[in-house]
Amino acid sequence: MSLSFEITATRDRCRRGTLLTPHGPVETPVFMPVGTQATVKAVPQDVLEELGVQILLGNTYHLYLRPGIDKVRNLGGLHRFMSWDRAILTDSGGFQIFSLSDLRKVTEEGVTFRSHLDGSSHFLSPETAMAAQIGLGADVTMAFDECTEYPADAPRVRASMEMTLRWAERSKKYFEGHKGEVPWLQASGFRLQGKQASGMNPARNDNELGASEDFAESPAELRSAGRVGAPALTKVERAWTPAPTQNNCTQALFGIVQGGMDLTLRKESAERTIEIGFDGYAIGGLSVGEPRTLTREVVESTLEYLPKDRPRYLMGVGTPEEIVEYSKLGVDMMDCVLPTRAARHGLLFTSEGKVSIKQARYAANQGPLDPNCACRVCRRYSRAYLRHLYAANEVLAQILNTIHNLSFYLDTMRRVRHSI
Amino acid sequence: MSLSFEITATRDRCRRGTLLTPHGPVETPVFMPVGTQATVKAVPQDVLEELGVQILLGNTYHLYLRPGIDKVRNLGGLHRFMSWDRAILTDSGGFQIFSLSDLRKVTEEGVTFRSHLDGSSHFLSPETAMAAQIGLGADVTMAFDECTEYPADAPRVRASMEMTLRWAERSKKYFEGHKGEVPWLQASGFRLQGKQASGMNPARNDNELGASEDFAESPAELRSAGRVGAPALTKVERAWTPAPTQNNCTQALFGIVQGGMDLTLRKESAERTIEIGFDGYAIGGLSVGEPRTLTREVVESTLEYLPKDRPRYLMGVGTPEEIVEYSKLGVDMMDCVLPTRAARHGLLFTSEGKVSIKQARYAANQGPLDPNCACRVCRRYSRAYLRHLYAANEVLAQILNTIHNLSFYLDTMRRVRHSI
Repeated sequence: MSLSFEITATRDRCRRGTLLTPHGPVETPVFMPVGTQATVKAVPQDVLEELGVQILLGNTYHLYLRPGIDKVRNLGGLHRFMSWDRAILTDSGGFQIFSLSDLRKVTEEGVTFRSHLDGSSHFLSPETAMAAQIGLGADVTMAFDECTEYPADAPRVRASMEMTLRWAERSKKYFEGHKGEVPWLQASGFRLQGKQASGMNPARNDNELGASEDFAESPAELRSAGRVGAPALTKVERAWTPAPTQNNCTQALFGIVQGGMDLTLRKESAERTIEIGFDGYAIGGLSVGEPRTLTREVVESTLEYLPKDRPRYLMGVGTPEEIVEYSKLGVDMMDCVLPTRAARHGLLFTSEGKVSIKQARYAANQGPLDPNCACRVCRRYSRAYLRHLYAANEVLAQILNTIHNLSFYLDTMRRVRHSI
Repeated sequence: MSLSFEITATRDRCRRGTLLTPHGPVETPVFMPVGTQATVKAVPQDVLEELGVQILLGNTYHLYLRPGIDKVRNLGGLHRFMSWDRAILTDSGGFQIFSLSDLRKVTEEGVTFRSHLDGSSHFLSPETAMAAQIGLGADVTMAFDECTEYPADAPRVRASMEMTLRWAERSKKYFEGHKGEVPWLQASGFRLQGKQASGMNPARNDNELGASEDFAESPAELRSAGRVGAPALTKVERAWTPAPTQNNCTQALFGIVQGGMDLTLRKESAERTIEIGFDGYAIGGLSVGEPRTLTREVVESTLEYLPKDRPRYLMGVGTPEEIVEYSKLGVDMMDCVLPTRAARHGLLFTSEGKVSIKQARYAANQGPLDPNCACRVCRRYSRAYLRHLYAANEVLAQILNTIHNLSFYLDTMRRVRHSI
């Protein structure tokens, strides 16, 4: 098993559980911050750790274009590349390509698209998308799907759903044949040959990820390179060694349910995706312009057909109210750019409602952004200062706003978990 | 005395000392990071504390325009506004206005200038510049001077120097008459009336600046506002209370030596500035386009005429090599935008020389930015990752690059101090 999922408590349809990934446990229901280009925009990794982030989402499309899959693979995979030793989920790239409506061409084989960066032409298929995700080395990968546009007529929705099912089979087939090629399994093998083979599962030390000597040949060689002596000189050529993977297991693969807004097709898509068999199941094709009430209806209906013992991932939602609501319906995992993107535009979520920090009314407000929030931003800075930073277009505005919004989302999910 | 300065060791012309400001001690020689708009661009205050920053520079010109002096004063002064309870030095605004060559008009009375933000017209004089610095409440303020352009002919340099001396007298006169109006003296008085009057000099707790209840009316009122109960709910309306000022003393005022590149005029300027009498002395009017060898010559010559028992501040320098060199000549304080600005452009200072992180040669380099640096960036991230962040135009590039460069500068000065 590449991924264990244990449900520890339930309350009505809501479930509390633990997803055990190769890079540590994830308490569910969980909100996953989006780290598009191997960074959650404006937040250093140690702050993400301090916030209690247990799993990040990486975007295959963006990383495929820049820095490129081979580059990340050669650097040891996405965890090591971005110095993040907790869990990562990657999307398949399908949704991003779907957003490039003018720059893509879909065939049975896959999708030809043009890069938003330089216009160069690329091709992603179930096979290449899975190869990319194996190269990145996420703990959880996603099958390559077609996100059906909204609105779409019935024949189009069915045809699209059928292709997603065929692509799901191809994704799984490729994944099963190549999942042993994940970079951290190879790095783990390398480590086993080294001098620290006995220390496979050290306790995490989140705030002091110091340099490791895993890859050093010998202390004598280090000395001869003039890098041993004073404390600051003991480091070796590699900046950081991720914590060894746990369970020594492979990546997981989730299938994605499509079917547009048609509840019957959603049921069929769910059943046939389950038949193919995946480690977890996602609900895709939502948040594509449909009314929110319709989103909720499709989610609620689709959840009925997903296996209770496997994690359920609702892609691309939502507001703080929505992530609570979907958790109550039985969703285990969610992701959204909303908290991070809104923060960069000065829109902040608080226990007292939304705050648009750019407003002049906050210019002399000495209170914390959210008096009921204990995040490092609310503990230290005033609304007046945050408003000034935003008005002055200072980078620190993006940093502090994003930290607060993520904290608010993570606290929201923590409260949901504790209420179950 | 508003500022005590104790020299604890000397080696040739180099001196090691401690500047005791109302907001804590500053070990000298010191490099002061520039926090133009009440923030050191891209670095949160807790990281500055962790880096060991003991004093920041704020720019009066920028803060005067945005958010405005009255706003900062009404919010308790710059320390409280930006949540920084260590020392701050503000410049007089003169140098920034000097940079606005097309937008300013200088008369004996002062300088009329147009805002770079919106073109609005403003006037700064020795009196208004001092009023602004008193309103901001920096620990160290600077006399309003004219930075003589380079090159300039002899009569122009003398006339400019003479005006700076007249402005120095006016600056001092205004300062002496109004220094009691500094906002943190008033805040301190307010605190003395409150319930924590007995806790005037608590030990600093740099990493856990939690909310204080100094300004709360009573626990009962807090409870009735629904903000007492669970730990996250105990905070009050003010986000942060700065540590009480030490020594209960007033701001300090430094005079500025001008005189262009003429060593005789520099001597005269120094002697006549000392005659007026200031808490410390700065060398201004350098780094204005002259050759570096000339800068050094003027600095070395001018230092001879500055009193040995008062801090000496060389404004606006320099490279890592230069700050070491000037320290060795006997300079105690320096500031420069170079480490922070260069960082945002991907130019990084390391023990192995300058690194332009944008270069493709670093794209697969797994080593730390500087193998001899123990900063949080070098401990955790690879050159390949830093290069990727820069190439992808990610905010995290600015954050991490700035943290490293500041760390490099501060470590450099730490080594200089330890060598004395």
